[in-house]
Amino acid sequence: MRHCCGLPQKARMLKSMLRSKELSFLMEAHNGLSARIVEETGFKAIWASGLSISAQMGFRDNNEASWTQVCDVAEQMSDATSIPILLDADTGYGNFNNARLLVRKLEKNGVAGACVEDKLFPKTNSLLDERGAQPLADVKEFALKIRAMKDTQTDENFCVVARVESFIAGWPLEEALKRATAYAEAGADAVLIHSKKKDSSEIDAFMAHWDNKTPVVIVPTSYASVPCAHFREIGISTVIWANHNLRACIAAMQASTRMIFEQESVVAVGKNIAPVKEIFRLQRLPEYLEAEEMYLPKK
Amino acid sequence: MRHCCGLPQKARMLKSMLRSKELSFLMEAHNGLSARIVEETGFKAIWASGLSISAQMGFRDNNEASWTQVCDVAEQMSDATSIPILLDADTGYGNFNNARLLVRKLEKNGVAGACVEDKLFPKTNSLLDERGAQPLADVKEFALKIRAMKDTQTDENFCVVARVESFIAGWPLEEALKRATAYAEAGADAVLIHSKKKDSSEIDAFMAHWDNKTPVVIVPTSYASVPCAHFREIGISTVIWANHNLRACIAAMQASTRMIFEQESVVAVGKNIAPVKEIFRLQRLPEYLEAEEMYLPKK
Amino acid sequence: MRHCCGLPQKARMLKSMLRSKELSFLMEAHNGLSARIVEETGFKAIWASGLSISAQMGFRDNNEASWTQVCDVAEQMSDATSIPILLDADTGYGNFNNARLLVRKLEKNGVAGACVEDKLFPKTNSLLDERGAQPLADVKEFALKIRAMKDTQTDENFCVVARVESFIAGWPLEEALKRATAYAEAGADAVLIHSKKKDSSEIDAFMAHWDNKTPVVIVPTSYASVPCAHFREIGISTVIWANHNLRACIAAMQASTRMIFEQESVVAVGKNIAPVKEIFRLQRLPEYLEAEEMYLPKK
Amino acid sequence: MRHCCGLPQKARMLKSMLRSKELSFLMEAHNGLSARIVEETGFKAIWASGLSISAQMGFRDNNEASWTQVCDVAEQMSDATSIPILLDADTGYGNFNNARLLVRKLEKNGVAGACVEDKLFPKTNSLLDERGAQPLADVKEFALKIRAMKDTQTDENFCVVARVESFIAGWPLEEALKRATAYAEAGADAVLIHSKKKDSSEIDAFMAHWDNKTPVVIVPTSYASVPCAHFREIGISTVIWANHNLRACIAAMQASTRMIFEQESVVAVGKNIAPVKEIFRLQRLPEYLEAEEMYLPKK
Repeated sequence: MRHCCGLPQKARMLKSMLRSKELSFLMEAHNGLSARIVEETGFKAIWASGLSISAQMGFRDNNEASWTQVCDVAEQMSDATSIPILLDADTGYGNFNNARLLVRKLEKNGVAGACVEDKLFPKTNSLLDERGAQPLADVKEFALKIRAMKDTQTDENFCVVARVESFIAGWPLEEALKRATAYAEAGADAVLIHSKKKDSSEIDAFMAHWDNKTPVVIVPTSYASVPCAHFREIGISTVIWANHNLRACIAAMQASTRMIFEQESVVAVGKNIAPVKEIFRLQRLPEYLEAEEMYLPKK
Repeated sequence: MRHCCGLPQKARMLKSMLRSKELSFLMEAHNGLSARIVEETGFKAIWASGLSISAQMGFRDNNEASWTQVCDVAEQMSDATSIPILLDADTGYGNFNNARLLVRKLEKNGVAGACVEDKLFPKTNSLLDERGAQPLADVKEFALKIRAMKDTQTDENFCVVARVESFIAGWPLEEALKRATAYAEAGADAVLIHSKKKDSSEIDAFMAHWDNKTPVVIVPTSYASVPCAHFREIGISTVIWANHNLRACIAAMQASTRMIFEQESVVAVGKNIAPVKEIFRLQRLPEYLEAEEMYLPKK
Repeated sequence: MRHCCGLPQKARMLKSMLRSKELSFLMEAHNGLSARIVEETGFKAIWASGLSISAQMGFRDNNEASWTQVCDVAEQMSDATSIPILLDADTGYGNFNNARLLVRKLEKNGVAGACVEDKLFPKTNSLLDERGAQPLADVKEFALKIRAMKDTQTDENFCVVARVESFIAGWPLEEALKRATAYAEAGADAVLIHSKKKDSSEIDAFMAHWDNKTPVVIVPTSYASVPCAHFREIGISTVIWANHNLRACIAAMQASTRMIFEQESVVAVGKNIAPVKEIFRLQRLPEYLEAEEMYLPKK
Repeated sequence: MRHCCGLPQKARMLKSMLRSKELSFLMEAHNGLSARIVEETGFKAIWASGLSISAQMGFRDNNEASWTQVCDVAEQMSDATSIPILLDADTGYGNFNNARLLVRKLEKNGVAGACVEDKLFPKTNSLLDERGAQPLADVKEFALKIRAMKDTQTDENFCVVARVESFIAGWPLEEALKRATAYAEAGADAVLIHSKKKDSSEIDAFMAHWDNKTPVVIVPTSYASVPCAHFREIGISTVIWANHNLRACIAAMQASTRMIFEQESVVAVGKNIAPVKEIFRLQRLPEYLEAEEMYLPKK
């Protein structure tokens, strides 16, 4: 029989993807609709971006949305899809106990994994330039938080990804290695090494010394020009395309809204946007219509 | 001093727009982000579309999202903007009492008005072809629902728009006039005459007999090719561009996601999407950075 | 390994209780705290009362709380306990599709079953005297709603209990038997026969003709004086003590609050209320303190 | 005309109560029902206790409930009453920015004030003995948080109460005075001096030196035996009866549930609990029945 939230299958898929020798991809989504589009396009897993989720709600990436609001969106994404979701869970929204509550809630929502970063609550977005380095979490405390999450999960394949922010904060390679090692030893299923350099030099240096203690996940937003061939060569497990669906929406809405505003007409914009029927299809309306046949008496 | 949710100013703006002799426009938004883009572009008010809101969450337009979930999204939209929002509130989510609760919640959330339609709960989208006519609400009961909403509002300018679905359901002009009249007499601030014809003939016929008992709102999705000059001529108050931001998002995400999937790169897509900094700007991050200067001690 | 929400074990327990030849009991709870007290006292299952849940939130029993708000409370109750919960789900909050969404959500929340009643949305409390009979649902449509719920559940033991309201609405025995039979044939795991008589005559008459097509659940609120020996004799499966924890709270809070108000002191009331440490114990604070030892670094 | 959430009147009442020379009282409530009972009994304001709210949901007093979940409960309490509510808002749920979001949300919900304590997020209950002193917030940062909250409020009478935890944490009087002074200078409308001694000696010492820079609020849970005459004498503004309604519920539910469990009958318990009609009355069902007369067509 099926599982109530699909967790076992989804978690197995995510874990297997992280461990696979093939380069894997997580594509950003930020609500049920974008998640469904990611699945339909062929991606095997979804990155539920904290930046994108907060931005679509009109919030900043500073833990303005409460953790239950984020989990509600993640649930909608999970309900809308059958591929695994890795939630960008910021710092875990507090201490080890908040992180444990998060794991319980995500499992119930069918979310296959959580990525937590070693910063302090409330966080600020890592790509922000106009601000000095953010303080990092105590490495020992953060490792224990990872441990608490792993001890809490009920599904053996639920994935906890430990995101190392020390490069972003200006620390040298040694700090990244020390942190990643501590998190791996605490049970992290993968480490995410974050960098905001324009090239992959920090990632390259890390990989040269990591010795594959866990799979490594990266987010090539700043160093987008580095080709995937290079990531395959250095042994990266998984690439996250972190916020591109939201950015596609922004550009498209700005252009369409402006055109409609200026022309007082939707005719011209009609060619660039999906038809109404496409909304219905994405909403799985046909299933509803079939179900009405079965479950509503004929008048 | 400012008002806690901005309701008085927003409701005044919406009421004045509905009553104005100028043709006005409501542009669809479905979350905080799209609402902000609508405001930035220059629109004077927002249509919080039930179809779009449910679709972005991954739900169908059949009251799958609960009324409190819809109100939470409307609140995020209101918090993100300073122009009025008219919420597409389906049937009011139940009887007169559910509609009263709705008015109370919307006022607290700073939402300037609610549009309710004379169908039965749970509803189905009006533009759906693959299905016979939907049953309409009893005209007397629906008029009393309007009355209950008007009696409940605390802000004199909160707007209740009565949406007449009888053309959609296949009834002749007389039915639309009878219903619109009953709703106007019950206190509706405007009537929305819905039509899914490819031309504006039903709207034209209605306007020829309506005698401006209330302002009239229309949704030219099916008859998009009719120019606004015509709507001005026949005395329409307000045009709703009902779902075009969501449709812009769908097309843009489908194209971007596919390009990224096929190319294993975000380089090419980068030209078509907004930069990361644009997300930050739309999130009003600068205000946060200034506030940090004021409210965090210097280290 | 454990299951993410405990559904399989809880649903198995509920189904087995309904089917057992022993008379079983469901005790009302209305939030996480009362649910835990019900479990601690020795009850084997919990009745999540719609009346009580709405009343504790300050709402009326007229579907003023949205279905997601009710499910959030049910989730808190499930998280706080390890015995099964049967949710009093009113009419299923809409049509067959709303009822399907409900089943999905309850399963994810670890709620073992849902009881739905054959009235119309929005409902009114059944024990209300000051009002004529409430209209009943079309029997065929309601049976199909039961079917839709059974087809939706993923756990084979999730229980759907069909509540027959025809006695309450003034219909004779034949109507109750017709309805109960239709719901049993549609797949209901049990029928709940509701009566607001001061004696059990309606229940007795039903049992005399039911022939045990499904287990029968009753709610002896009005006929509380009938002893359980009688229910055992006529073959009742399960008795619901429907709202007594909420009523205990009301009386206790009214008395305590008044005493504190009048005496300007909590000394006298102190003997009648639980100590602060008892709150901590019910919150499972000891587990947190142990976890801090494991997951927070020593300072 | 009325205000959408009643904030202006409620905030004015709370501020005036804090500033009054009379000794005032805040009585604990933890949901809509208990709030209504507090108002009916005659109290002039409500303490929305963080401990009680979390406990009723089945959570611990360690910020397990998200801040939006707490605000939802506070909204239900505010909707159910017409007297002001002071929310026990822990540390403000994060930094200055989270505290600002809180103020905005509370104002929209009609909550008249927030009390924030100078501890770190996530917090632990102050009355807990089995644990060493909790770290305090940096005094400067906490004062700026108060300032941020005051700068954010739109209603001039919304009250921010600064709760000083230094006595609880084992610091001498000087620390309490230093902190209280800093918070007063930052704009706090009152300070809450917390103590877990069995007598009022810490409070007495504070009052002897405070010179009435702001009104002083106290929570005599541990020193409950000190009579209010003493608090009047030393110039206390407001006494909080902090958790007694929850404790009344616990004792009453434990006793009632046990009696029902053991007796397999609700007859005996019936004398100690409120009748069903009392639930209806507290839910304001009569208003609904009247409204049905007005807003539902006669059949």
